[in-house]
Amino acid sequence: MSTISRRQMIAGVGGVIVGGAVASALPAMAAPSNFAKTAEWVPHKVDPAIGERFGYDGYYHKGYGCCYGAFYAIVGQMAEKHGAPYKDFPFHMMEVGKSGISNWATICGALLGAASAFSLFYGRKERKAMVDELFRWYEQTAFPIYTPKTDIVVNKEIPTSVSNSVLCHVSVSRWSYTTGIPAKSKVRSERCGRLTADVSRKAIEILNAKIDGKFEGLYGKQESVKYCESCHGKGKESPIAKGKQDCTPCHSGSEATENKFKDHP
Amino acid sequence: MSTISRRQMIAGVGGVIVGGAVASALPAMAAPSNFAKTAEWVPHKVDPAIGERFGYDGYYHKGYGCCYGAFYAIVGQMAEKHGAPYKDFPFHMMEVGKSGISNWATICGALLGAASAFSLFYGRKERKAMVDELFRWYEQTAFPIYTPKTDIVVNKEIPTSVSNSVLCHVSVSRWSYTTGIPAKSKVRSERCGRLTADVSRKAIEILNAKIDGKFEGLYGKQESVKYCESCHGKGKESPIAKGKQDCTPCHSGSEATENKFKDHP
Repeated sequence: MSTISRRQMIAGVGGVIVGGAVASALPAMAAPSNFAKTAEWVPHKVDPAIGERFGYDGYYHKGYGCCYGAFYAIVGQMAEKHGAPYKDFPFHMMEVGKSGISNWATICGALLGAASAFSLFYGRKERKAMVDELFRWYEQTAFPIYTPKTDIVVNKEIPTSVSNSVLCHVSVSRWSYTTGIPAKSKVRSERCGRLTADVSRKAIEILNAKIDGKFEGLYGKQESVKYCESCHGKGKESPIAKGKQDCTPCHSGSEATENKFKDHP
Repeated sequence: MSTISRRQMIAGVGGVIVGGAVASALPAMAAPSNFAKTAEWVPHKVDPAIGERFGYDGYYHKGYGCCYGAFYAIVGQMAEKHGAPYKDFPFHMMEVGKSGISNWATICGALLGAASAFSLFYGRKERKAMVDELFRWYEQTAFPIYTPKTDIVVNKEIPTSVSNSVLCHVSVSRWSYTTGIPAKSKVRSERCGRLTADVSRKAIEILNAKIDGKFEGLYGKQESVKYCESCHGKGKESPIAKGKQDCTPCHSGSEATENKFKDHP
């Protein structure tokens, strides 16, 4: 075994783990590949209008929330029309993104659901521009846009705001600050349900265009990111910046980022 | 059809979609349930030491990154020992979390991978304390801890930092700022590979304890969150706060959040 690397020793599904606690009954090194090989998933075009409604209904379905809603709007539609492998996906897992991952308010769960759906079908090089387009559109768009016509859970006009951020915390708190409506309220939930519909539609438009070979990103790099990267990007004098989010919400000295732990409000 | 609600009309897998572009060959309303029903996933205990190594190797495997690594450390171990349904999960999808979701540097992908694994087995009420424990531990821990003993990709001592944040942007940029090592470099990648090992081990310890009925969270709510919620929580005078992240990185008036678009540096 001395000529086999540690990584080869950690064999894939059907193989063995040598020297560890786990060992299958199969012959040693029967499958010397590393890590589980998963079948290729082929995308199908889906309907943006149905997706919008699936997103909204999915948000409320069992309280699974935004990430499940957006993911189901895409992959659920494929499941309902095309069966396996789509129907066998453990959709309940996508509840993970609810409220920005178990209420931590990090990434907007609707964006996570859509990006996860893209990721089923496209590797990172193909997916990059799709995610960039969706996320940059989100940063700059006043939500919600969608108004359900029937079976409306909270039948009110919902005021809008632009978040400038893909983070749930910024998106929701800025909306609550702007509108005066509590972050924990049925109206705010409705806002997020409709936003899930909006993200579902946009993501489906991107996916359908990609499948047709017609996808083109319309949103360029944000001005703030260009500016910060000019000193903090790769190879620059202070190359510490990581990421693609609009820098302004946290790095423009706004009232929100003043010291709130001293002499506040 | 007039007595059937819109939500019933959007039927689950095996059902029909009435009035939309999609219709199956099955009799109308054959399956009037909403949304795909997925089988229950039963968790198995897995080995923390193997998980640590799987996390590290998974991070580098095909460049899939942190989220894939942490998820594979948990669910991949179950796949290699127990086969279906674990082995049929489309693991490649978990590349979505790489670099905080397609390089957007939102949630740390290793945390997303671990939380997603939890979500396969536990609904939000059960999962909440598990995620809280993992994320709060992450905020307060100096990473990386793990040092691979063989097949080390970047064989150097890796300096550590505490991020106070579950966000990739803050975690990586603060580490780069502290250590002086570029955010886009092989040493920084190695830091994140080892961090993936650390998150994998901790998540497995939480999962194993949960399966044994012995899980107890040790990390309480952060002082900053308690303080901010005293005015911005539900039912308080300005109930706009959303989330559970430590508030200090963005709301303590630190140097990092000063106006960087004017007279900077």
